[in-house]
Amino acid sequence: MSKGASISGFPEWLPSERVVEQRVIDTLRRVFELNGFIGIETRAVEQGSSLLKKGETSKEIYLLSRLQEVGHESDTPIEDRLGLHFDLTVPLSRYVVEHSGALAFPFKRWQIQKVWRGERPQEGRFREFVQADIDVVGNGDLPAHYEVELPLVMVSALEELRAFGLPKATVHANNRKLSEGFYRGLGLSDIEGVLREIDKLDKVGADEVARLLVESCGANEAQAKACLALAELTAANGTELAERFDVLCESQAISHDSDAYTLAREGLDTLAMIVDEAAKIRPGSVIADLKIARGLDYYTGSVYETFLDGAASLGSICSGGRYDNLATQGSKRYPGVGLSIGLSRLVSYMLHTAGARASRVSPAVVLVAVWNEADRVQSNAIANALRARGIAADVAPKAVKLGKQIKYADKLGIPYVWFPAQAAQGSEQNSEQNDEATTEANGETPGDEVRDIMSGEQRPADIKSWEPDTVYARQTVSLKA
Amino acid sequence: MSKGASISGFPEWLPSERVVEQRVIDTLRRVFELNGFIGIETRAVEQGSSLLKKGETSKEIYLLSRLQEVGHESDTPIEDRLGLHFDLTVPLSRYVVEHSGALAFPFKRWQIQKVWRGERPQEGRFREFVQADIDVVGNGDLPAHYEVELPLVMVSALEELRAFGLPKATVHANNRKLSEGFYRGLGLSDIEGVLREIDKLDKVGADEVARLLVESCGANEAQAKACLALAELTAANGTELAERFDVLCESQAISHDSDAYTLAREGLDTLAMIVDEAAKIRPGSVIADLKIARGLDYYTGSVYETFLDGAASLGSICSGGRYDNLATQGSKRYPGVGLSIGLSRLVSYMLHTAGARASRVSPAVVLVAVWNEADRVQSNAIANALRARGIAADVAPKAVKLGKQIKYADKLGIPYVWFPAQAAQGSEQNSEQNDEATTEANGETPGDEVRDIMSGEQRPADIKSWEPDTVYARQTVSLKA
Repeated sequence: MSKGASISGFPEWLPSERVVEQRVIDTLRRVFELNGFIGIETRAVEQGSSLLKKGETSKEIYLLSRLQEVGHESDTPIEDRLGLHFDLTVPLSRYVVEHSGALAFPFKRWQIQKVWRGERPQEGRFREFVQADIDVVGNGDLPAHYEVELPLVMVSALEELRAFGLPKATVHANNRKLSEGFYRGLGLSDIEGVLREIDKLDKVGADEVARLLVESCGANEAQAKACLALAELTAANGTELAERFDVLCESQAISHDSDAYTLAREGLDTLAMIVDEAAKIRPGSVIADLKIARGLDYYTGSVYETFLDGAASLGSICSGGRYDNLATQGSKRYPGVGLSIGLSRLVSYMLHTAGARASRVSPAVVLVAVWNEADRVQSNAIANALRARGIAADVAPKAVKLGKQIKYADKLGIPYVWFPAQAAQGSEQNSEQNDEATTEANGETPGDEVRDIMSGEQRPADIKSWEPDTVYARQTVSLKA
Repeated sequence: MSKGASISGFPEWLPSERVVEQRVIDTLRRVFELNGFIGIETRAVEQGSSLLKKGETSKEIYLLSRLQEVGHESDTPIEDRLGLHFDLTVPLSRYVVEHSGALAFPFKRWQIQKVWRGERPQEGRFREFVQADIDVVGNGDLPAHYEVELPLVMVSALEELRAFGLPKATVHANNRKLSEGFYRGLGLSDIEGVLREIDKLDKVGADEVARLLVESCGANEAQAKACLALAELTAANGTELAERFDVLCESQAISHDSDAYTLAREGLDTLAMIVDEAAKIRPGSVIADLKIARGLDYYTGSVYETFLDGAASLGSICSGGRYDNLATQGSKRYPGVGLSIGLSRLVSYMLHTAGARASRVSPAVVLVAVWNEADRVQSNAIANALRARGIAADVAPKAVKLGKQIKYADKLGIPYVWFPAQAAQGSEQNSEQNDEATTEANGETPGDEVRDIMSGEQRPADIKSWEPDTVYARQTVSLKA
């Protein structure tokens, strides 16, 4: 992104960088649609009441005021004001409730849109960024198999992005019920508080989390230690997970007959199913990792975070979970499960760390040269004929010296320059340029010719049949050698 | 859009409607890229100072405040606050100045993004909507040929949208210099005022505009009448335009030697060039229409509005012009010309007036049935094999009765249901469903089969080679018969 970007936290890509972002978006959309997800877009704006309801990020909303309201903003309670959405899950829940009569359930949707977080400006934190989400929302109930299928769709999407320099991704899964049951078994009651502190583990370290658990969540030192022991537990399969968890419960004297254990076991069984089913389809792609807590408080079961090999500093690049109570209407419930990719940060990584770059800035394959301004209509006709055949074409901005026209193509990365056949009654400028541009200077008027700028090779070409090299045919993204 | 949409002016499409919008966006992007335009996206947010600078819509901006700032919004002057962009031209100008060192000029860009207008809620007015823009911005100068080429790109784009029910579009062009020269020739000096009132012609009628010109712009009745006479002038070619204009000047005693006529003539020559060049490539697509004024005050030369045959009530669906002074940095100028399609209103027209509809809601071509929950892994494997071959596939949400699974596919418009081969050791449910689902009931275990829901035809199918009918292969948009 440009160094000169003048508003901190609002990233903006240069044209060549935007090509990478656009390809990432196109790729994700393709994978999501291959998996049967339906694309929607929600309005950028929600009622304050709906934004404030859920999620710790609700502290970070941007409220709107019309210019005419300036000075009177406080007349309207925040709940009645409009604000920009801070994620795509809260809007989805509202959309599902609002349009439930028109949707087929379970409703599988993808959504790639900007979100905004009204944080303080900080280094490396975006206040406007793109999220790419998939969710499945049921009407009344939602089968658990989606809790393994959705992370796998994201894994396959992230796998496609490896072509743009993304390292291998691993989904780390946990289950809120497992954590809650264990914490209750220890005798703790401030479950949300404990989850919030555990969520800080990677940032502040175990000692500080232990201190916070004691200070803020009413834990004694032994309980704090046990919470940290749970957070250290990881497993690649369900049997291993159950064994390790039971050892831990035993050490903490949590009985298998207790309500707390029953709740934890419910979460554990779902988590075990997830890692075991995932292993059948994509071994190593999903592991159980009991430190995963998630900042958003609307999750009720499975929670996911996704990390890239060798890019731990990026944090989780794809997170989500199951939320049973976000969308409700009277007695109706619409439980959902979904994951969200923080797309802008991924693109930033691809560009600045992995060295992804566009093969060219312009979508055009061909620049049609212009001999004289009077001949521009001929060059435009050639460009239009190529476009009608699906070949993207640009026309030189000015009938300047050919060298300058070729330079313009080169600056935009356009691989071919097309030289229109010259009329017999060539002007003086024509003759001068003729020497530069035509391969045969035997006095005959040549037809149309095309020059490959890289190789310098120039050949006769027919607008009805000419095709670019397949490598050149479209903008692509590659990695720096 | 949903009747229940709860925030007035913030349209939201149902999934099947979104398919139409997405196809429109895809189509425009394809046309823009075929013409060599480079895609960018700018942040949604600009500084208040930059939003307030230009355009009558600057009265309609949404300002942002972080939740923490509520109650203290007025501490910050509006110029220093952030606001949502109300168009894509002001952001482009800022982007070009900010990134000028990294761009190749002339810079041809397309941009399809949401914009926001903080208007009062009104019937039929959107406060959040999508614009689709193309612009060319030069460094220092910008050749006039773009003033005919850009409207023609839009005409060809709108032509493609006729498949979605859009009537034929005609660009109506004018030139600010022509209007200004004529008004000055009449002895009027409040040029912006006169343009503003003339812009209301279609809304309030000639009598009211005459009254406003007298009341607000210092015109006498004869001058007002002359302004209206100019606004009535249209022409399909340059010669006709020049002749009619000169007759009008003569009747108003505007001398060919005057500065006013010279200015008007400069505008007229550009306008004549535009209609004549356009007629060579797309006869009838661009006409001179001297009532076109445009609400935005940053235009300095050509201005365009576009109307659809038989849909006058929609107003202009694609507007723009040339702006020579919007982007400046010190002594540097970046003159531009561009047009903007009001995409949301177009989609609304297609859906509600033209009857455009998606062939299906789901992108999936195939729904893979599930015999038993225990067999889901087999159904998932089939779906993944199809996806790997580029065939979008969904899997039945639950292993319920086949009739219900087929109904789910039907509701989403998925044309095929895939029946996995059944294991020899079929359960009782298997046997029961077997009768419904398999064409041969001769005791042999059948392989995979595919049913075309529409025809009811069911055939053996191989995941390695099966292809859907090409008509069914992807979501399309058609018009109601």
